[in-house]
Amino acid sequence: MAELHLLSPGGFSAAGIHAGLKSTPKPDVGLLVADAACSAAAIFTTNRVAAAPVIVGRDHVASGRLSAVVVNSGNANACTGNRGRNDALAMCRQTAAAVGCDAEEVLPSSTGIIGHLLPMKKISAGIASAAAKLGSSPDHALAFTDAIMTTDTRRKSAAAACTIARCKFIVAGVCKGSGMIGPRLAATTSHATMLAYITTDVSIAPALLRGLLADASEASFNAVTVDDHCSTNDTVCVMASGRGPVIRTRKHIATFAGALGEVCRSLAWQIAADGEGATKVVQIDVRNAARPADAKSIARGIANSPLVKCAMHGNDPNWGRIISAAGYSASSFDPEQATLRLQGTPVFRRGRPLPFSAAALSKRLAADRVLVDLDCGTGSASATVYTCDLSREYIRINADYHT
Amino acid sequence: MAELHLLSPGGFSAAGIHAGLKSTPKPDVGLLVADAACSAAAIFTTNRVAAAPVIVGRDHVASGRLSAVVVNSGNANACTGNRGRNDALAMCRQTAAAVGCDAEEVLPSSTGIIGHLLPMKKISAGIASAAAKLGSSPDHALAFTDAIMTTDTRRKSAAAACTIARCKFIVAGVCKGSGMIGPRLAATTSHATMLAYITTDVSIAPALLRGLLADASEASFNAVTVDDHCSTNDTVCVMASGRGPVIRTRKHIATFAGALGEVCRSLAWQIAADGEGATKVVQIDVRNAARPADAKSIARGIANSPLVKCAMHGNDPNWGRIISAAGYSASSFDPEQATLRLQGTPVFRRGRPLPFSAAALSKRLAADRVLVDLDCGTGSASATVYTCDLSREYIRINADYHT
Repeated sequence: MAELHLLSPGGFSAAGIHAGLKSTPKPDVGLLVADAACSAAAIFTTNRVAAAPVIVGRDHVASGRLSAVVVNSGNANACTGNRGRNDALAMCRQTAAAVGCDAEEVLPSSTGIIGHLLPMKKISAGIASAAAKLGSSPDHALAFTDAIMTTDTRRKSAAAACTIARCKFIVAGVCKGSGMIGPRLAATTSHATMLAYITTDVSIAPALLRGLLADASEASFNAVTVDDHCSTNDTVCVMASGRGPVIRTRKHIATFAGALGEVCRSLAWQIAADGEGATKVVQIDVRNAARPADAKSIARGIANSPLVKCAMHGNDPNWGRIISAAGYSASSFDPEQATLRLQGTPVFRRGRPLPFSAAALSKRLAADRVLVDLDCGTGSASATVYTCDLSREYIRINADYHT
Repeated sequence: MAELHLLSPGGFSAAGIHAGLKSTPKPDVGLLVADAACSAAAIFTTNRVAAAPVIVGRDHVASGRLSAVVVNSGNANACTGNRGRNDALAMCRQTAAAVGCDAEEVLPSSTGIIGHLLPMKKISAGIASAAAKLGSSPDHALAFTDAIMTTDTRRKSAAAACTIARCKFIVAGVCKGSGMIGPRLAATTSHATMLAYITTDVSIAPALLRGLLADASEASFNAVTVDDHCSTNDTVCVMASGRGPVIRTRKHIATFAGALGEVCRSLAWQIAADGEGATKVVQIDVRNAARPADAKSIARGIANSPLVKCAMHGNDPNWGRIISAAGYSASSFDPEQATLRLQGTPVFRRGRPLPFSAAALSKRLAADRVLVDLDCGTGSASATVYTCDLSREYIRINADYHT
């Protein structure tokens, strides 16, 4: 079987071209187009400073139908007032005219610098050029993926193929995100510049699709943090072409939700792995906490501590930073009940340090994936958060990058 | 007038000696002793993982009377179980025996690595040695100040002299703190390893002193963040020898509160300025927010964003990072009502970017002090938070430092 890609589910085409927004010759305008208007759902940043395309996108996806996504990188079209909203609407109109659909069936996205007006001449020419190059090959999927990237160092994609009543279906997705990553996505609102676009060929009602997308995002995109900075532009959009099996019974819903969840988790993991300056993914598993909200806030507190992230970068089993981060993140945390393991090695149990070989553990922390496992011992709630280490490279990218 | 120092208020002596906890020959055990048991108050970290000396200190200061403070650096005595609490109690007993007071009148403090048992032989010998060297000269104050330092690159002290009814009084203080700084101190609980010790010669009831200390800390220590990592050991302690004027009337309380506030703010500013890797202090003024809690969370949100801190390090007027941080920090934030100024230059007003010279503003951001002024335009609440920039040096200190 050939490798699955964003356009493997039938009914979609895509393109990505260089319109001149990026200073390098890389693609910066992309189109993802459905052959016909299809069932769709999207969730967006909860940031009160929502970019123009997010404001327009929320409005357009409310109908549960989309025909196309138009994206540009290199400029976020955020904090750009009425002019910004008009520009986002113009992107939709121009896309609609080029691909033959209603402007209200187009979801716009932008990512890049905040506070600059879009160069609309370049964007318009770019949309026309991309529309002329639409196709469904793996190369078309790659070009679209490239067009949404900013500081990403590699492409991010995932796909899953499943069967319902002997009928095969596919869920595929691509995303971008490296810095300004701390998404708090919600069905009506969310946060971090991460963009993700998911295609599938199932037939599913928009309301059901929206609910399943929200659930899948909770344990994936909303569980990733690079710098906990919730962007103005975060968007996750799913379109279902309806060519495959109908998702309606409880069993079929579970099968589809499983595939959607797998794709979202893979994309989220790839964002953590490509976090700005990251050399490793750090997975924080918090178990047996008093309440679900406590489990999540403890996991996020640990994941967002610059001290923990620096220790992980230095392969330093300095577990005190982890326990202290847990201690300020939830009032229910009780060190006398807790057990902490790093890469499987118990280092702290019930208020006391455990003996371990720092040198041996340090060697095992020098890995692509590090597992921090905190058993709170005070309940049965759990949460997992994915993050990365904090390195000099993050500083270089974000202090040396000039507006 | 000679320069004021920690021992300028009459009735106190101090010492700082090298007991062998630090690998360098710098002082690591300090004593601050009152000539007689005196009115005292302290506030501590709100971290649920409270270090042993914090647990013991809360208990001892509850009486409102203290005779001495004993501090060690190089080891936090945190996450050390019953043995740790017994060690903290032993430090109090040994100090009491050496200076002639009750063990319950001694407040213990520790700062350094978490999860290691105190080397009690060294500590005991250090306390005896320090007690033999007590004195009230400026050099004694300096030795105590040195004994509490960890990654601090410079001493931090402040003093204020005022007059009440023609009677002069002094408030003086020293503190340490550079990393793991995000204090959330409270009268019964608080957070970050910052330690601060304040002396004064006024005569004041312990309950009143505690209330004034909590108020003063709110706008000073609790308004500083370096990495938002609330420590297990944060402690701010004030002792009043009672030799000076009596603080009882509303007017006198206001005068004393003013002096105490000035000393606390100065110490807090010095912590931000000496934040690990810091090259500048960034003051975030949030004004006209809907509610006080909103003003504070917006100011903290901006101050804790790694993206904002990196932009400040790079002298980059990338104000979109500031507005977006405000947008995810409080639900009441409305970009359409807000105005943002950087070093006095308006860059964003009511949802729209303003024209400015990026090159000229970048030059003015290359300063020791940077002012971020955000007028929310939605109410009358305000908050100020002090932070520093984020540099490669922070990574070096915290990733290369090994346990």
